[in-house]
Amino acid sequence: MEKVTPRILPGFMELLPADQILFNDMYDKIRSVYESFGFLPLDTPIIELSEVLLAKAGGETEKQIYRFNKGDNDLSLRFDLTVPLARYVSAHYNDLTFPFKRYQMSKVFRGERPQKGRFREFYQCDIDIIGNDELSILYDAEMPAVIYHVFKKLGIGDFTIRLNNRKVLGGFFASLGLSDKIEEILRTIDKIEKIGKEKVVAELIAAGVPEDKTETIISFITISGDRRETVEKLRALGVENEVFQNGVNELETVTEAMITFGMPEESFRIDLSIARGLDYYTGTVYETVINAHPEFGSVCSGGRYDNLTGYYTDKKLPGIGISIGLTRLFSQLRDNGLIAPGAGTMAKVLVVPMDKNTIPYAVSVSAKFREAGIPCDVYYGEKGMKQKMKYAGKSGFPYAAVIGADEMASGTLALKDMLGGSGQRAVTVEEAITILKEKEE
Amino acid sequence: MEKVTPRILPGFMELLPADQILFNDMYDKIRSVYESFGFLPLDTPIIELSEVLLAKAGGETEKQIYRFNKGDNDLSLRFDLTVPLARYVSAHYNDLTFPFKRYQMSKVFRGERPQKGRFREFYQCDIDIIGNDELSILYDAEMPAVIYHVFKKLGIGDFTIRLNNRKVLGGFFASLGLSDKIEEILRTIDKIEKIGKEKVVAELIAAGVPEDKTETIISFITISGDRRETVEKLRALGVENEVFQNGVNELETVTEAMITFGMPEESFRIDLSIARGLDYYTGTVYETVINAHPEFGSVCSGGRYDNLTGYYTDKKLPGIGISIGLTRLFSQLRDNGLIAPGAGTMAKVLVVPMDKNTIPYAVSVSAKFREAGIPCDVYYGEKGMKQKMKYAGKSGFPYAAVIGADEMASGTLALKDMLGGSGQRAVTVEEAITILKEKEE
Repeated sequence: MEKVTPRILPGFMELLPADQILFNDMYDKIRSVYESFGFLPLDTPIIELSEVLLAKAGGETEKQIYRFNKGDNDLSLRFDLTVPLARYVSAHYNDLTFPFKRYQMSKVFRGERPQKGRFREFYQCDIDIIGNDELSILYDAEMPAVIYHVFKKLGIGDFTIRLNNRKVLGGFFASLGLSDKIEEILRTIDKIEKIGKEKVVAELIAAGVPEDKTETIISFITISGDRRETVEKLRALGVENEVFQNGVNELETVTEAMITFGMPEESFRIDLSIARGLDYYTGTVYETVINAHPEFGSVCSGGRYDNLTGYYTDKKLPGIGISIGLTRLFSQLRDNGLIAPGAGTMAKVLVVPMDKNTIPYAVSVSAKFREAGIPCDVYYGEKGMKQKMKYAGKSGFPYAAVIGADEMASGTLALKDMLGGSGQRAVTVEEAITILKEKEE
Repeated sequence: MEKVTPRILPGFMELLPADQILFNDMYDKIRSVYESFGFLPLDTPIIELSEVLLAKAGGETEKQIYRFNKGDNDLSLRFDLTVPLARYVSAHYNDLTFPFKRYQMSKVFRGERPQKGRFREFYQCDIDIIGNDELSILYDAEMPAVIYHVFKKLGIGDFTIRLNNRKVLGGFFASLGLSDKIEEILRTIDKIEKIGKEKVVAELIAAGVPEDKTETIISFITISGDRRETVEKLRALGVENEVFQNGVNELETVTEAMITFGMPEESFRIDLSIARGLDYYTGTVYETVINAHPEFGSVCSGGRYDNLTGYYTDKKLPGIGISIGLTRLFSQLRDNGLIAPGAGTMAKVLVVPMDKNTIPYAVSVSAKFREAGIPCDVYYGEKGMKQKMKYAGKSGFPYAAVIGADEMASGTLALKDMLGGSGQRAVTVEEAITILKEKEE
């Protein structure tokens, strides 16, 4: 038979089991923190009607969409989880209780040119809170507090959540007489870490910003200090613009609440260069960096949006959301050796019947292990003991429970530590359970 | 602004939070049983190259595929998890340990005409075991044993795993001189429960089966009895066909091992009318019915396939797999009232600060709850107490922990049972934790 080369597309992540176990462990940790804060699960379709999904999209985003026809329908694969959320709350408005807190951790699709660290199919792990008519500014502080607990739990080193407020930026640029250029300025300054100060200035000038004002913009977005100092410096600018002043007040309220919510001072800071490219943000915006690896870029971003449901409903449904790009983060952590796969199996023990006759007893032992909450596997293949033990070792089982006629007769098993190499010892099933449970902790 | 109606496509399932919690609970239970048997997680891409994914497909399947071009690539959304597995083991052959046991629980896509109970996007919860060159027949018994534990854990009533063997069918039809019609016969008899005996006979005649032989076929596929009786009746037919005899031996070995593996006699039976439409099965085949609801059809099906990787590799990689169509099963159970959503939240308690001043203490209480493993939410909106409590009730929180100035001063909280309605009582945080943990059990 002619063969087809078994391969996948570039830009798609597919893992070997040991890596997949590691990935799932991260996924489960994020999910458990999200749930511990009362976020509700949601699972929207991967395929949506283009008319609905792309109501707001345009430009770069639209080019990346996987869009196609099936029958009479113009369909698209979702490119994020925020637009489907906006569609969902608009459609189910009467069935939801607000503020509506939901998490969704699923794959999204962007047909970008594949490059290192960019994926076309990747997991986003989102939390959002949607208010009915209004949403307390305190939720802007709860978001980073949740993320703080997530990253603590992931245990991947120190990190800093950097935040800003679009009103501060917009109000400031308006006060410079640049109201008509705010979008371009935001997009440009957002790139300062990537392309550097000189190029930002050049791009600003190209966008029509007068040269003398580029200096003002650069000094502004590079204001530094702790959260209190930064707020003071902003106030000291004496900008007479109400949007600006509201934004500064919000920044102050949010950063104070972040302390109240248990975040250490060093876990976050105000960074006036953060703008977030997406134009739907209207207030607080966040990015997150792993301190030892700024080259990873932002590993968790989001912000406040007041009008995202405007395409679907007349209801005013302001929201705040933040998202971890898990596929990319996982790939960066693994490629840099910050995480490493463990054993190639989640089972704690392989039960190895020495021959056919001992299989029924081996099965009963495995059932007892499972009842005790110990995941385990049984080797049923008709191979020699050497090959069976080779399988146990290669698969990464921490223990093997060998069962021959003697063990069956005496109701015991020979427990072999596959990693410690301390030989094997005859134990009862109950003793084995105790040992295996201890090992777990 | 002109509005786009927020809607999704027919045939796609999207749930309200209470239902989603219920769905996730089923998903998590299935996953935990799969993992307890040592199956490894896998997560293959949703988008694959059509050339690779459709190497084997054809006919009905191919028509249902979501297939499209992006750039120079001819792409398809996966329509099952078995073909991607065949691709995966062929590509990663050198990195895997065999027998390779994996589970995958993800969405697949079939652009069928939507009808009640049929979904275009749905979860399959698969386990498969792939052998290198050979795979012990005992794994054919382990599959239903795992499924037995899954359905016990789901607690949705009595069920029966019905099994058959393609060799028994193929061998028997060959012995009738119908070797060239086996595929059509299998496809036809598979429908006997749906369309009835008369239509099966008519279709068999239309397919060119001589009329007198249709009677023989019908009596054959309706052979009944317990597993031992059925095997005896099959042997008593005296069919002189080696494939048939091998098949009967396999059926006997597998059903005996199912008992060894802890399955009660009444949890399964041999059913010679089971053929499974997919042509890649080569030995054991399974279907599962909920006893009280045969109209659901098979809620879990699978079988042995010897040549599924043949399109990708010269290696001989026989496998056995079984799959739960979770989206459909969930929808059937819910529509028939066999499962019902519980509270609309996974959090056990809503912490309600009475005013702004009590927020910091409320936050510290919520942190203690979470540390104790109790998921909880805090209400930060600036509303009156009545509205806050209305939110707690409507959201389905079993408890509310109300915190005013008095509670803050005395280091307590007022715990209100939202369901029992036994008023509220002043307790310490530690007492509250004890109460909330008790409730959990």
